[in-house]
Amino acid sequence: MALTREQQETLVRVGAGTPMGELFRRYWIPVLLSEELVERDGAQVRVRILGEDLIAFRDSEGRIGLIDEFCPHRGVSLFFARNEECGLRCAYHGWKFDVNGQCVDMPSEPEESNFKHKVRTAAYPCVERGGMIWAYMGPPELRPPEPALDWLTVPPSHIFITKRFQESNWLQSLEGAIDSSHVGVLHRYDLDHDRLHQDAEGPKYIKADTRPKFEVAEAPFGVAIGARRNADEHHDYWRITPFIMPFHQMVPPYGGNPTGGHSFVPIDDVNVWVYSFYYHPTKPIPPELRESMEGGSGIHSVNIPGTYRPRANRSNDYQIDRAAQKARKTFSGVKGIAAQDAACQESMGPIQDRTRERLGTSDAGIIAARRRLLEAAIALRDRGEAPPALQPEDQQIRSASLLLPKGVAFLEAAADAIHAEPGKPLVSL
Amino acid sequence: MALTREQQETLVRVGAGTPMGELFRRYWIPVLLSEELVERDGAQVRVRILGEDLIAFRDSEGRIGLIDEFCPHRGVSLFFARNEECGLRCAYHGWKFDVNGQCVDMPSEPEESNFKHKVRTAAYPCVERGGMIWAYMGPPELRPPEPALDWLTVPPSHIFITKRFQESNWLQSLEGAIDSSHVGVLHRYDLDHDRLHQDAEGPKYIKADTRPKFEVAEAPFGVAIGARRNADEHHDYWRITPFIMPFHQMVPPYGGNPTGGHSFVPIDDVNVWVYSFYYHPTKPIPPELRESMEGGSGIHSVNIPGTYRPRANRSNDYQIDRAAQKARKTFSGVKGIAAQDAACQESMGPIQDRTRERLGTSDAGIIAARRRLLEAAIALRDRGEAPPALQPEDQQIRSASLLLPKGVAFLEAAADAIHAEPGKPLVSL
Amino acid sequence: MALTREQQETLVRVGAGTPMGELFRRYWIPVLLSEELVERDGAQVRVRILGEDLIAFRDSEGRIGLIDEFCPHRGVSLFFARNEECGLRCAYHGWKFDVNGQCVDMPSEPEESNFKHKVRTAAYPCVERGGMIWAYMGPPELRPPEPALDWLTVPPSHIFITKRFQESNWLQSLEGAIDSSHVGVLHRYDLDHDRLHQDAEGPKYIKADTRPKFEVAEAPFGVAIGARRNADEHHDYWRITPFIMPFHQMVPPYGGNPTGGHSFVPIDDVNVWVYSFYYHPTKPIPPELRESMEGGSGIHSVNIPGTYRPRANRSNDYQIDRAAQKARKTFSGVKGIAAQDAACQESMGPIQDRTRERLGTSDAGIIAARRRLLEAAIALRDRGEAPPALQPEDQQIRSASLLLPKGVAFLEAAADAIHAEPGKPLVSL
Repeated sequence: MALTREQQETLVRVGAGTPMGELFRRYWIPVLLSEELVERDGAQVRVRILGEDLIAFRDSEGRIGLIDEFCPHRGVSLFFARNEECGLRCAYHGWKFDVNGQCVDMPSEPEESNFKHKVRTAAYPCVERGGMIWAYMGPPELRPPEPALDWLTVPPSHIFITKRFQESNWLQSLEGAIDSSHVGVLHRYDLDHDRLHQDAEGPKYIKADTRPKFEVAEAPFGVAIGARRNADEHHDYWRITPFIMPFHQMVPPYGGNPTGGHSFVPIDDVNVWVYSFYYHPTKPIPPELRESMEGGSGIHSVNIPGTYRPRANRSNDYQIDRAAQKARKTFSGVKGIAAQDAACQESMGPIQDRTRERLGTSDAGIIAARRRLLEAAIALRDRGEAPPALQPEDQQIRSASLLLPKGVAFLEAAADAIHAEPGKPLVSL
Repeated sequence: MALTREQQETLVRVGAGTPMGELFRRYWIPVLLSEELVERDGAQVRVRILGEDLIAFRDSEGRIGLIDEFCPHRGVSLFFARNEECGLRCAYHGWKFDVNGQCVDMPSEPEESNFKHKVRTAAYPCVERGGMIWAYMGPPELRPPEPALDWLTVPPSHIFITKRFQESNWLQSLEGAIDSSHVGVLHRYDLDHDRLHQDAEGPKYIKADTRPKFEVAEAPFGVAIGARRNADEHHDYWRITPFIMPFHQMVPPYGGNPTGGHSFVPIDDVNVWVYSFYYHPTKPIPPELRESMEGGSGIHSVNIPGTYRPRANRSNDYQIDRAAQKARKTFSGVKGIAAQDAACQESMGPIQDRTRERLGTSDAGIIAARRRLLEAAIALRDRGEAPPALQPEDQQIRSASLLLPKGVAFLEAAADAIHAEPGKPLVSL
Repeated sequence: MALTREQQETLVRVGAGTPMGELFRRYWIPVLLSEELVERDGAQVRVRILGEDLIAFRDSEGRIGLIDEFCPHRGVSLFFARNEECGLRCAYHGWKFDVNGQCVDMPSEPEESNFKHKVRTAAYPCVERGGMIWAYMGPPELRPPEPALDWLTVPPSHIFITKRFQESNWLQSLEGAIDSSHVGVLHRYDLDHDRLHQDAEGPKYIKADTRPKFEVAEAPFGVAIGARRNADEHHDYWRITPFIMPFHQMVPPYGGNPTGGHSFVPIDDVNVWVYSFYYHPTKPIPPELRESMEGGSGIHSVNIPGTYRPRANRSNDYQIDRAAQKARKTFSGVKGIAAQDAACQESMGPIQDRTRERLGTSDAGIIAARRRLLEAAIALRDRGEAPPALQPEDQQIRSASLLLPKGVAFLEAAADAIHAEPGKPLVSL
């Protein structure tokens, strides 16, 4: 059941020209939080995505530019450029580029020269949705409709997002998020205390049935992963986790709490940005809950101030506390769900060797997601087939937790519960 | 006399499947100080030996486990595991392994599943001897008797051990230890002051004859290296240094002081653990001497507190003090015998290029040790011959300093002096 | 106009045996400031030049030695050696080498042994000129006359030199220095304030004509680069920058101020020492100007005390100040001409990929210098032709700023102005 070397290579490489790299480039991709690029003509930001070094800026009109980090003239970084009058002006010789990558000024060349019109640099279109900036890095003629994922449809008051840097290949982080079976182990002692799990009925079923059964079903958005626990004689308690192509995941909700999710955006082959969010389709996030998430509750990371690097990280062994581990305050000695996931996933190495692993029945979600990704990447490469979930209607999906009659096919039975529409309440137990 | 490229490669590579790597794996190897793994169910420790990443733990019964660092399931490091109830439980999905590497619990899989019985991870047997934990990493059916080196036979009161991390290939450190000719140069100004050289007669001969002659003799334990100095008309003063296969060395004693030695344990091709000890076969180490060694006297290192990394190290140029060098307080400007050795040996680069060196007559010990190691490694690889010094009787050896009649063959004449037996006094001048 | 991959490789590689590496080795090369090696029998200094690791010392007679860093015996670094009695004595076994690389003592070998006479280590002859130590690293029989560059002919009172470490290939730094067109962009706001540009007539022409024309002319010393600006109906204002083979550049002077220049000495393929100087052929540098340069005025770097590493460097984003950039106190947000150049040139990467660049008419100087270097390297490699500017008479060159009648060939018309002779006043406007 372990992957072949070739399958593994296909899944983990994200550069231009690789099968997965080309697959990713057909989607809108989160590249920054909006909070990182607020001011018009403010400081530009270095962005590394899918192995490409880019620079993002907000121009005098408020438009967002995302262009090659290096000036095409002599290769100097535009990090040192001036962001002024609708363009980024290289600090070395003053060549200036607009948000479309067109050179619009070239003071070092004779005025009569036509040279500037001939010079363009790589530029990717961007949109802002849900407090994030999204870019499309693929062929212009194949640009899909703007992203319409459920959490992007709510007003800012209804959503809370953070991000963190993870030192591993992107797939390790995605696999962790769709791997429900680790939650009751690694995060066992966090579940009880966390603000985001309180006042819900679901946990009573979770505690009563400690060995859930997992079922997976391919779907237009990606893969639906259901965890089934016994509820009563006639019903099962289901928690349904959607994996949305190519790298989004949604956490089943608890009672009246907001529901969460992640986007795992490859920086390059060995680093990934983890975006983590909670949102509520119908009501604002209460201030005290927002504050608690700023402090690291739920799946949020506590970062080094001024950066998106976790305070507990690989270089300090995630501030492991053996006494807390012994006292069962944490299962691993590491504090916080985000840091626990990072500790495990980064410890696998920059790229986990999946040719040697030993998968069990509880890894069904991981196996299904890998298959979905591999098939889509190969279909694109070999037959030019457009990948799944490019269209807004295929993105109208959300997680759910609910009771279903015993014996039903969960994806069919929960179809309405996981179908997302703006303003429609969560189905959550 | 320089090595060929092929000989050099054979000597320095220690990974599984290399000739030297396989040779090392036929011996018991020190992997930790006992002080690093004291408590039952206490914190596990990362161990990297011969290029293998392992994790050591002491279980609820006091048994020592040394197993693959990474869980066979998904490759997560067992550094984050729980050490509880006779096994190490992975923090990710709770798979649990005992000291034999057998999976004994697998909570993420159905109870009726037989999967856990099929999963084993690499595990190496360990014993504790002389304040150290020793492992056997070779084929189980070829496991030799437990180590019986002289310093392992004394009670804890009679021995003092430290260890330090060295950033070089293992062979550079071994060669330094059996290279008597550098002692009077590099350590020249340390000899006079050091506690461990006082109240002895030997130094008067050392000072009187500044150009000792070196003789080497192959022996069942490895190589005996004799340094001969003129004593009187009829006698020579001999200092005999045994190189014990595959990486141990013993320092000739001074008068009534304890005698010292080293074990040089390859971490991988470019790093080595240096274990340094003094012991007395017949009496305890006095408290004030023990304290002096904790402060770095003799061959002991002063480490960064809480680590086994020397305070004076490559990143700080070994805290070199040019004024002290000028004033002849130290020969090299570096303080302490251990730091002086590390400074020289690490400065050769991660792996010294021995194809370019210029050896002299004073390098006879180095040349003999290399030959012994190469022959043993090739004999094992090509003819499956068991290497020397696996049997306890071949390990009953110690260093000595003594007068011998002129003209005798030193190994024969000093046979009794260097033959070790528990409780037998040192022969030391 | 971009380079081919092969041309690029030829230009950037500096190791022994490469075309450019061999070209450099035919010249005298600055390896240290004299201030780094002042005291007889003082501390030796590590020197890495053209990819070779060397050690420099000043012996008991004041002679300078520059020899292989590693002892030929066992490869130990001579950084730990003793500098005493006209030689460097290795700390490991006491082998001692004089400034010629001859082994002159070998205490570890028998006195009657003739071994020491047979052991030599690599040694390069050195001279001191203009506050710098220069070495010749080429074939002894081809050693050229000692360097006679104009700034080496003045007394210490007339010159001020600093150096800084740059993390890029050497060519990026040279190209920056001969690239006049970046000065009015990157350094725009520094020109007005800097002490070294004051009380001169030239700047009025610079401000009046913002698009200078560049002309280049091959010359015996290398390449002359002229920037022409309109002055009046009959005259042009010329600023002439000589590129002197193989890596020197001179800055045109302003009025009565001293004139500046650089030497860009390759450390290896990805690092370079930048030596920066101002000198006056006819008068001392005033104390207040010397002080201002110590503080970083002109092209000088502000270094971390006790080192030659800039305080503003790659690891701290050159202490970029976005508010100062916005307020047009600096063009790039980086303070100081030296740091601005380093920021741009290091941001191109360790070795800029010149196969992808887009050169314009303002890059004429860069194009000419590359051609001159390539032709000289190939001529040496293929036909053994001695490179340009080895002879003192070809080094008698300096920069100038002056008015010339319109329409003249600048190199011919300014021949006397840029011809250097000791004591001859600068031609400077």
